[in-house]
Amino acid sequence: MLLGNTPQISRQPEWLAPRLATGEVSSEQAVERCIERFEQREKAVRAFAAFDAERALGEARARDRERASQGPRSVLHGLPFAVKDVIDTVDLPTQRNSPRYEGRRPEQDAACVRMLRQAGCVLLGKAATVEFAGIGRDSPTTNPHDPQRTPGGSSAGSAAAVAAGMAPMALGTQTGGSVIRPASFCGVAGFKPTYGRVPVQGLWLHAPSLDTVGWIAENVELLARAAEALKLGEWQAPKASSRLRIGLYRTPYWHDAEPASRSAVERAADRLAAAGHSVENVDEIPGAERLNEWQDVIMHGEARISLLADYGAGKQGLHADIIEEVEVNREITPRAMAAAYDGIGGLRPVFDQRLASYDAWLTASVPSEAALREEGDGEATFNRLFTALQLPCVTVPGLKGPAGLPIGVQLVAARFADMRVLAAARSLEKLLAES
Amino acid sequence: MLLGNTPQISRQPEWLAPRLATGEVSSEQAVERCIERFEQREKAVRAFAAFDAERALGEARARDRERASQGPRSVLHGLPFAVKDVIDTVDLPTQRNSPRYEGRRPEQDAACVRMLRQAGCVLLGKAATVEFAGIGRDSPTTNPHDPQRTPGGSSAGSAAAVAAGMAPMALGTQTGGSVIRPASFCGVAGFKPTYGRVPVQGLWLHAPSLDTVGWIAENVELLARAAEALKLGEWQAPKASSRLRIGLYRTPYWHDAEPASRSAVERAADRLAAAGHSVENVDEIPGAERLNEWQDVIMHGEARISLLADYGAGKQGLHADIIEEVEVNREITPRAMAAAYDGIGGLRPVFDQRLASYDAWLTASVPSEAALREEGDGEATFNRLFTALQLPCVTVPGLKGPAGLPIGVQLVAARFADMRVLAAARSLEKLLAES
Repeated sequence: MLLGNTPQISRQPEWLAPRLATGEVSSEQAVERCIERFEQREKAVRAFAAFDAERALGEARARDRERASQGPRSVLHGLPFAVKDVIDTVDLPTQRNSPRYEGRRPEQDAACVRMLRQAGCVLLGKAATVEFAGIGRDSPTTNPHDPQRTPGGSSAGSAAAVAAGMAPMALGTQTGGSVIRPASFCGVAGFKPTYGRVPVQGLWLHAPSLDTVGWIAENVELLARAAEALKLGEWQAPKASSRLRIGLYRTPYWHDAEPASRSAVERAADRLAAAGHSVENVDEIPGAERLNEWQDVIMHGEARISLLADYGAGKQGLHADIIEEVEVNREITPRAMAAAYDGIGGLRPVFDQRLASYDAWLTASVPSEAALREEGDGEATFNRLFTALQLPCVTVPGLKGPAGLPIGVQLVAARFADMRVLAAARSLEKLLAES
Repeated sequence: MLLGNTPQISRQPEWLAPRLATGEVSSEQAVERCIERFEQREKAVRAFAAFDAERALGEARARDRERASQGPRSVLHGLPFAVKDVIDTVDLPTQRNSPRYEGRRPEQDAACVRMLRQAGCVLLGKAATVEFAGIGRDSPTTNPHDPQRTPGGSSAGSAAAVAAGMAPMALGTQTGGSVIRPASFCGVAGFKPTYGRVPVQGLWLHAPSLDTVGWIAENVELLARAAEALKLGEWQAPKASSRLRIGLYRTPYWHDAEPASRSAVERAADRLAAAGHSVENVDEIPGAERLNEWQDVIMHGEARISLLADYGAGKQGLHADIIEEVEVNREITPRAMAAAYDGIGGLRPVFDQRLASYDAWLTASVPSEAALREEGDGEATFNRLFTALQLPCVTVPGLKGPAGLPIGVQLVAARFADMRVLAAARSLEKLLAES
C-alpha cells in the first residue's frame, strides 16, 4: 500500500560532482538544479532547516567567476553542499532544532565548513536534525523513498537532501549511528571518518568523546573527494590492492539484524567474492558484546554534561527528554563511565590489530529497512560499537530490501585507514551498481 | 638582584569569596576592589586581554539588587571572575591572542561561563593567554611576584590576575600543564578537574582529547565552591576522612625536578605526616615513563587538525610556529597517534586502581620556581602525564623556593574523585599556611 504511493527516485543518471569538475555544468547551474529539486521535493521531504536560494546562487556565481579568472580551487570547486544544523554557518542560522537557539547566528563557520568552502564548495542550506543531534525534538524530515518512513536520525536532513537530489553532498555528525543509519535508510553513500580526524570547532558537541563529523554524498567517489578536501588524504594508509581482502564481520549483534539486512550483507559478500576479492569470516572478539552498552553509557553521561548550561538557564523551551537526561540520566555513575571508557579503550588496539590484515570488514549498516516514522528513527545497533572504537565506516548504497526500500551495507577499517576504506567502498559500490 | 625589585604580594589577609558570602562586602564593592588592584598592578602584570570596569560594575549592581530582592543564587553570588581568552564570552571579545580573531565577538558565553553566571558570578574581564592556548604568540603577562619572571603558560593571565589580587577567581584551560603550572609559579591555588567533567561548548579546542577547563582561585576553598557551581559535586566521591591517606608519587620524571621543587614536595609530605596523616611512597607504574611523550604526540597531532581551517584561510596573520605545526607537525604519523592513544588508554585503569586506596597522591606541580621570561614559560613535566590520564589535579600554594618565589605542590586523585582531591587539598593548604 505505502509503496504504491512512493515517489520513485532512481539513482541519479548523471552525478553533479563529476560534471562540475569537467566544467560541463557551472556552479550556478548546479545550484539551480538543487533549487529545482528543492521546489519539487522539499514540501514532502522537509530536509532543510534553512535554505536561501538567492544567497547560494550568488556564492555559486562568485565561484564561477573565480574559476574563469583563476582556475578551480580544488576538484570540488563550485559544488553545492548542505550542512547539518548543529554545525555553525555564518551565512545561515544554526538553530540545532532547539527553541532555545531560534534565529541563532554564529560569528564564524565551523572548521569543517570553512575547509569545504576553502576548497570552493558552495553553501546551499542547513539540513534538519534531531534536537542537539542527540535528544529532544525530532526532525520533521521524511524518507524521500516513502514519506511515511523515517529517513533515520539524527543527520536526517543531510541524508534526505542528498537522496532527493536537493544536494549532491551534505555534512552530518555521528555520535551513535547518525551518519551511517540515515544514509542507509535513504539509499545514499555515507562516511564517518576516524574519530578526531576532522576538526570539531563550531560543532554542537553532544558527547564529545564520540561526536564525529561525517558526510553523505551522491556516491562514494564524492565521499572520497570531500575527504581529501578535509585533509584526510594527508595521512594516507596503504592503498587497497586490486584484489581486496574483506572480512565478513557479523558483530555480536547479528541476532538483531533482520533478514533484509542479513541478506544485503550476504549479497554484497557474494558480489565481492564473484569479482575475485577475498571474503573471509572474522571471528568474534571477546568483550565486543559489551561495546554498544558502553557506548550508551558514555553517550548519555557526556550528553548530560553538555546540556548542563542550557538546563541551568531554566526549563522553558527545553524538551522533556532533555530535562530527564539532566535530572535522571539513567542513573549513570562515575564508576560506570570509567568502566565504559576503559572497556572500549582496551578493545581499540585489539580491533586495530585484527583489522590490519584486511582492506575492510563488511557488516550491516542498519538492522533493517527504514521503519514507519511513528516507530522512531531506527536503531544504531551496527554503528555504536564502531563509533566507540573510533573506526572509519562507510555505508555503500545499491541494494534494496523486501519492502523495496534501500538498505546499505557497511565497510569498516582500522583507525586512520580512512582513504583505504573509501577505496574499498568505491569498488563495492561499482559491483553493486553493475548487478 | 631581581628579587630586590620584586613587588611583595603577601597572601591576601581577607579573601573576597567568604566576605561576599556573608554579605560583609557587596558584589559592587568586590568588583571595585578588583578594579583598584587592576589600576595598581595591570600596567606591570598585563594579565588582561579585555577589562571593562563599567560593565562589570553594572553586572555586580544587578547581582546586588537581586540578592536584596530574591536572595543569592548560590554561595558564589556576586563573585567577580576572569575568563581565559580562549573561552567565549558574549559581553567581552574573545580573541585567543590571535591576530585572526581581533575583535571577535561570539554570540553566546561558553557553557562554563554560563554556569558560573547562573550561579551569580560576575564577569570581570578576559585573561591573557598564549595564542590558541597552545602555540604561537606568547602572552604579555609577567609574574606578579617579579616582573622579569614568567607567570607560566598558557593560562598566564588567569593565574597572574588572581595572584595580583585583580580577581579572586579565573577560568583557564589545561592541555598539558596550562592551569597547574601558572598557578604554581604565581603562588595561587589551581584545579584541573577530571577530563570531560566540565562542558566544553564555547572553548577553543586545541587538542580536544586533552583540553580541560580548570580554574585558579584565591584559595582551595574557592576552587571547591566553583567546582560545586560547575556541578562536579553531583558525582561525589567518598569524602576524605579526617586522617588522609596520601601517596608520595615522584613520577618517572623526578630527575627533572630541581631541588626547589623536590624540597617543596618533601616539606609538604613532612607537614602532612606531622599532622597525623598517612604518607607512603608509591611504587612506579610500568609504562608510566612513556606518558609525557605520548601526551606530546597527541597534543601536536590533534592541534594540527584544529588549526587546519585557519591555515587553509592563508598564512597572513598566522604565527610561524602555527604554520610549522600544520606543515611539519614533528612528522607525527597515524601509527604514532594510535600507539599514544592506546598506551595512555591502557594505563588509565591501572592508575585509577592504584589511586583508589588513597585520598590523593602528592607530587611536584612544576620542576622549579618560575624562570626568567626570556627562558620560556616553564615545563609541564609534572602535568602532561596526569592530563593524559584524565585525573583531577590541584596545585596547593603556600611554599617558596630558594629564590623566594612561590612554588606549588600537586595533589592528584582517581578519575571523578574531584571533590575528594579538593578536600585533601584544603587540608594541605591549611597545614602549609599554619607553618
